[in-house]
Amino acid sequence: MPPKLLVSQKVIAEFGPRLRHILDAAPGRLEVLPFTPALRLSDRDAGNIEAAYYSRDIWEGTEKSALSPAAQAFWNTIDRAGNLKWMAVYSAGMDQQRYTDALRRGVRLTSSAGAQSEAVGLACVTGVLALARGVPHWLAAQQRRTWSPLRGKDVPPDIPGQTALIVGMGYIGKVIARVLRAAGMKTIGIRRNTAPAEHFDQVFAPPALDSLLPSCDWLVIACPLTPDTRHLIDARRLALMKPGAGIANIARGEIIDEAALLHALQSGGLRHAYLDVFNTEPLPQDSPFWALPNVLISPHNAGASTGTYARGVEIFLGNLANYLNAQPLQNEASLA
Amino acid sequence: MPPKLLVSQKVIAEFGPRLRHILDAAPGRLEVLPFTPALRLSDRDAGNIEAAYYSRDIWEGTEKSALSPAAQAFWNTIDRAGNLKWMAVYSAGMDQQRYTDALRRGVRLTSSAGAQSEAVGLACVTGVLALARGVPHWLAAQQRRTWSPLRGKDVPPDIPGQTALIVGMGYIGKVIARVLRAAGMKTIGIRRNTAPAEHFDQVFAPPALDSLLPSCDWLVIACPLTPDTRHLIDARRLALMKPGAGIANIARGEIIDEAALLHALQSGGLRHAYLDVFNTEPLPQDSPFWALPNVLISPHNAGASTGTYARGVEIFLGNLANYLNAQPLQNEASLA
Repeated sequence: MPPKLLVSQKVIAEFGPRLRHILDAAPGRLEVLPFTPALRLSDRDAGNIEAAYYSRDIWEGTEKSALSPAAQAFWNTIDRAGNLKWMAVYSAGMDQQRYTDALRRGVRLTSSAGAQSEAVGLACVTGVLALARGVPHWLAAQQRRTWSPLRGKDVPPDIPGQTALIVGMGYIGKVIARVLRAAGMKTIGIRRNTAPAEHFDQVFAPPALDSLLPSCDWLVIACPLTPDTRHLIDARRLALMKPGAGIANIARGEIIDEAALLHALQSGGLRHAYLDVFNTEPLPQDSPFWALPNVLISPHNAGASTGTYARGVEIFLGNLANYLNAQPLQNEASLA
Repeated sequence: MPPKLLVSQKVIAEFGPRLRHILDAAPGRLEVLPFTPALRLSDRDAGNIEAAYYSRDIWEGTEKSALSPAAQAFWNTIDRAGNLKWMAVYSAGMDQQRYTDALRRGVRLTSSAGAQSEAVGLACVTGVLALARGVPHWLAAQQRRTWSPLRGKDVPPDIPGQTALIVGMGYIGKVIARVLRAAGMKTIGIRRNTAPAEHFDQVFAPPALDSLLPSCDWLVIACPLTPDTRHLIDARRLALMKPGAGIANIARGEIIDEAALLHALQSGGLRHAYLDVFNTEPLPQDSPFWALPNVLISPHNAGASTGTYARGVEIFLGNLANYLNAQPLQNEASLA
């Protein structure tokens, strides 16, 4: 009996012919095991799983605070799959403890980085532009049926000529730079490799952060969460920022010291923020962030876009062929 | 006594040296007459006004429905300036009846087209992206302190690959095309001159409109209001649009048949709209547009941006030098 590839019923239903074509090219190597939340495997069958795809449909409904029922059933199965060698996952970020645990036990992991980069990057640009042009003010006035143009001292600053400092120049950071630059902003990127990059006017290494903060109008967080980036933006760095500046975070809440961020937004040290991610998700109902008029919140929803799921499956299918042919895997994760 | 140039106190206070420098280069030609709302001129002094600048500070507070007190005082003066030869105005659009009347009596008029094109264009892009990504949904959920990600059938369509049909390829249309194209949209422009243009994937003449409407995801109105464009978008053309499409109008309300637009938005024929302009401004409190959840309203505020005023003054000062040197004027209007 060949070893198993655990894949959701939905992926099989929608991509079955492609999947079979790839598997048939390596006869006897892997056989599809359809995942449903009701799946109950014997120890022997669980031990026969060699590869698995934690697809977006299994994950959907999961929050930081709790797995969805389907995701819980998936991980219950994975925990018993002692011979698992490779797992592809729906997400771009690989900072979940479960992933680290899997890597530690020798499982190869591949992300879906790139599948949602346009969606997340464009959501970030949307958040920045919405705050920069006054959309929250307009919508609040609309609710009151009030014609209330921004005038006099409330007129927003010109966007062309502003500077966006983008921490992280992966797929998402590049989308953000591309569009904000087209909107007239100067784009500065931060990453270890300081070679020039398309859409970025300048690139600096991480130690330059402190010296760049005082002159940027927007600080955009688009880097992975790692031990190095946890609380990268703390009270001291927030205090270095230019008066009137804004922040956008579509990466991970833990990259910014949330208490310090809240204080900066309440005190006016920061003008406004677009936040897709938080330390605790869902954001608790009593969080003060909800009521700040200078904050735009999207509920870890920046990646939602109709094509995200299918692009993730494409990355998985490409890697499945690579895996069967013993070729390098795209987006392979490693322990930090 | 040399003829007069009517200019606001604010412009004199902020641009006085530049203004004097330009006037001094043509000795004896024009002398500054400071405008304030309290200005009362004799018939003789009013008849001695040769040129005037209807600057943004005089206009501010004016709505379609009523002039601000300063603007009213300005036009009271202009109406008595029987020898007025040239007036520079703060606006880009030249569709006001007062302007047509002035042109008919032989006054040369120059607009401030270009001074607010980045602001208006970026506001339009912001409105399009905000609707395309679900910002109104996010802000409404934020008000209820509710973590409500768009999922399943509510997930918004991918932005890359969408098509934006931009009617009008002036300064503003070009900004919109530049940024929406960077966001991944295909950009199609409509204007009389169908020569290829930067930032536009395709350019068509106005008669192509009907054949283009069924395949575009966004219809963006960025053309002047003229007899040709009044009700350019009527019930018939709205019905030609693709299901799920959206509209943005940062030009003039009269270019769209407002009753037909309302019906299309209420019936779901149109998915959503970003509207900066209306037939009646301020939009009356009982207008049904206020309460539509698929409409984002900005109160004819798309041009508000800190640099708009100064850029308008620069255009005026450039034209003042041209005028004194009998050179062609930038942005000169003519009767349709």
